Amino acid sequence: MAKLQQSSYVLCLAFSVAVNLYLILNLYGHGAGGQWELSWSRRAAEEAEHVAAVPCSGHGRAYLDGLVLDDGKQPGCECNSCFGGSDCSQFLTDCESNADGGDPYFLEPFWMEHASESAILVAGWHRMGYSFSDKSYISQELERLIRKVHDVAGNAVTQGRYIVIGAGSTHLINAAVQALSSSSTDNFNSSSSSPASIVVTIPYYALYETQTEYFQSVNYKFEGDGSLLNLSSGTKRVIEFVTAPNNPDGKLNKANFQGPNSAAIYDRVYYWPHFTPIPTPANDDVMVFSISKLTGHAGTRLGWAVIKDEAVYQRILQHTLISNLGISRDAQLRAMKLLNVVVEGGGKEIFEFGYTTMRKRWEKLKNTLSLSNRFSLQKDEPLFCTFFQKRRGPSPAYAWVKCEREEDVDCYKVLQEEANVYGRRGSVFGAEDRYVRLALIRSQDDFDILLHRLNQLVSKEDDSQPQTSINNVTTHEFLRRKSRK
Amino acid sequence: MAKLQQSSYVLCLAFSVAVNLYLILNLYGHGAGGQWELSWSRRAAEEAEHVAAVPCSGHGRAYLDGLVLDDGKQPGCECNSCFGGSDCSQFLTDCESNADGGDPYFLEPFWMEHASESAILVAGWHRMGYSFSDKSYISQELERLIRKVHDVAGNAVTQGRYIVIGAGSTHLINAAVQALSSSSTDNFNSSSSSPASIVVTIPYYALYETQTEYFQSVNYKFEGDGSLLNLSSGTKRVIEFVTAPNNPDGKLNKANFQGPNSAAIYDRVYYWPHFTPIPTPANDDVMVFSISKLTGHAGTRLGWAVIKDEAVYQRILQHTLISNLGISRDAQLRAMKLLNVVVEGGGKEIFEFGYTTMRKRWEKLKNTLSLSNRFSLQKDEPLFCTFFQKRRGPSPAYAWVKCEREEDVDCYKVLQEEANVYGRRGSVFGAEDRYVRLALIRSQDDFDILLHRLNQLVSKEDDSQPQTSINNVTTHEFLRRKSRK
Repeated sequence: MAKLQQSSYVLCLAFSVAVNLYLILNLYGHGAGGQWELSWSRRAAEEAEHVAAVPCSGHGRAYLDGLVLDDGKQPGCECNSCFGGSDCSQFLTDCESNADGGDPYFLEPFWMEHASESAILVAGWHRMGYSFSDKSYISQELERLIRKVHDVAGNAVTQGRYIVIGAGSTHLINAAVQALSSSSTDNFNSSSSSPASIVVTIPYYALYETQTEYFQSVNYKFEGDGSLLNLSSGTKRVIEFVTAPNNPDGKLNKANFQGPNSAAIYDRVYYWPHFTPIPTPANDDVMVFSISKLTGHAGTRLGWAVIKDEAVYQRILQHTLISNLGISRDAQLRAMKLLNVVVEGGGKEIFEFGYTTMRKRWEKLKNTLSLSNRFSLQKDEPLFCTFFQKRRGPSPAYAWVKCEREEDVDCYKVLQEEANVYGRRGSVFGAEDRYVRLALIRSQDDFDILLHRLNQLVSKEDDSQPQTSINNVTTHEFLRRKSRK
Repeated sequence: MAKLQQSSYVLCLAFSVAVNLYLILNLYGHGAGGQWELSWSRRAAEEAEHVAAVPCSGHGRAYLDGLVLDDGKQPGCECNSCFGGSDCSQFLTDCESNADGGDPYFLEPFWMEHASESAILVAGWHRMGYSFSDKSYISQELERLIRKVHDVAGNAVTQGRYIVIGAGSTHLINAAVQALSSSSTDNFNSSSSSPASIVVTIPYYALYETQTEYFQSVNYKFEGDGSLLNLSSGTKRVIEFVTAPNNPDGKLNKANFQGPNSAAIYDRVYYWPHFTPIPTPANDDVMVFSISKLTGHAGTRLGWAVIKDEAVYQRILQHTLISNLGISRDAQLRAMKLLNVVVEGGGKEIFEFGYTTMRKRWEKLKNTLSLSNRFSLQKDEPLFCTFFQKRRGPSPAYAWVKCEREEDVDCYKVLQEEANVYGRRGSVFGAEDRYVRLALIRSQDDFDILLHRLNQLVSKEDDSQPQTSINNVTTHEFLRRKSRK
């Protein structure tokens, strides 16, 4: 009996010692080759994880720099449009469908899935100086990654090209206008001192005009539609904005002006497999890209210009220094980390994700509007895409919707009043108000609500009943469907 | 015997189980109230700690976005000027003493001491959109902290004032020029459409001129020294840069122009207890501040303007949007974190550190140059400082050195050729080249080397021996002293 008891003690002891060994290995074994024992970084890491763990029902998220709620503990949820309540679980029935701004939240789920690889911990003493150790204002490592991303996507030639980082394409667009128009430039054969004409093709992104007119430079003047330009004098200098794919209509525009007195600024921020087939690597003299439309980080004000000519490069670089004294090191560090994730595995993952998401949305929208005689969409022309090695259609960032009924001269108003959908007026793009731009790159919630509202609107086309309480019926149904998911 | 054995088994088992319990509590007990079990943030935290642990001999540091060395493991050391070798332990005897740029590394040790409170972990999905949830481009939390910092320092009135964030003071200075000069402005009574005159007081910070001339606006023109301006027409609009404390000479300048046709842009980036007594909270119409000279983070391109007039505020805000589409969210997040540390305990810690460091440097420099008949410094006028509640002298960011010998017309060259010290020429500030600016806000290494070289130079004033191999003797001795520390 005692023997039995003794051997059971031995067994228990052996088991307990084994558990001890296992626990010791788990607890202290990390330093020896496993996990690093965190010290000063732990607090920041914990803060970030606490905030990320705030429950927002999948319709919002909390941010580190969000407003702290009354309980004083942590920032509260910031809900997607049409959702409210402290945990974003409440659907706001009469809300506006926001299809206006170009916030690229469609990529947010990608980064949530790649949380570990895309996080950065910034130390309090990180890069306090104005310049990097090579005296430059641009991280060499970031520049290397930008070239790599273009190699991977096959969307631009960067070999033998200069690269300048700016505070988003917005910053670089003005830098390029200044660089190409400044009277000291030898890009133009003309000795004329009259201001260079800045021209566009309608429809065009409004910022080109706003910005060019805002700066009121003696060196350049916004002249609008290039096809209306009087070139009889022969020495007029022309700087042309070429947006390819175009914002708003997704067209792969090409320069209309050639020759020694003209220069083009190619805005290529949408020239990624997310949005368009990539028929060939772009090889224009001055091309502008941005992290906003590549990784979805519009808030990280960072873009880059790829430039052929050294003198133009020097002037664009000078602009970024004179206007901003370089680009925030914090943004450069973040861009570096994000691009590292993008180039992993040849870019397959993010471009697949971006394309699939955007193509799905586009097809759903096409299907909806194909039932309509009242609304039409831009054409969908498939091309061979060198990235996916197949013929594919576009998956554009924006829908360029036209109201076809004669009486619907204000398409923005039609969508707003009849569907509670807020797009961006055609006239903002220099086009007729018969057109309206709808953003497709926003959050899934925004897209779902937009599509739902458009479905409702289209389904009423043959309906002769008076149009009351559209939203009340539809949004309740919508909410039910959402909660069933 | 068996009994004895049995009880010793029981004892061992009890001990083992107790150890088990202790280990289990250590390993899994964190969630219950101790440490949070880190998941997705751990990798970023480890990366940051690994990089921070790279040994650089106290004369350099490694950065997360530094170039990766051949071993492919982690970024290498970036050494302070005059130090080299893979661990920065090597003193470079013939190196140049860099007293040119205004990199505010003097605050780096403060942030290394506050590693835990100042670190941030940025999630991959942090603030991807263009605007905050209130549709603004400026973090409310950051704005709140900016007001608090001014309250704490007592250096500016912010109650009832508007605040705009920009990409450093560089960005905001041009925004203010544009805002105050634009022809749509009603800040001027004049209906004249001639460009506003931008004026300065000599010596002045060169960027005002570079930037104003660079943009070549029809609305404003750089006219240099305000005292030379011909105001006979009576309707001339004047915009005056007032830098207080002044860069380069530390003077608390005041506006020279008054009345309905003039406006002042107060550049107050050095108006912090680090550099100057704070006699009273500044209360100017347009004031510009920056994180660079407050926390030392020049690389985080972030500054702010404090503005009285709403229309001017709206135009300055518009400028930041049209030129850059707002300020990087990453930089705003970082600034928020840093300002949180600044305001802790009423700002005592950082301002004490900043003042003590800068005052020590200034006194050492004064002592050295007090032995010289060849070089003189700007005056040192004590004032009552409301922050420290005592009368105190300045502790300026820059020394404004004058060469007193008639033949020393090029003071920059004198210091360069005779002491291997590189300052910034007086003519860069619109002054005579008999002056040179020496930066005192750089790293402790930079200051030590500068002081040492100046000591050597001054000690030779009475020395009639030929001036050969100055640096060879001195730097060896210097190196010996450094290694003894």
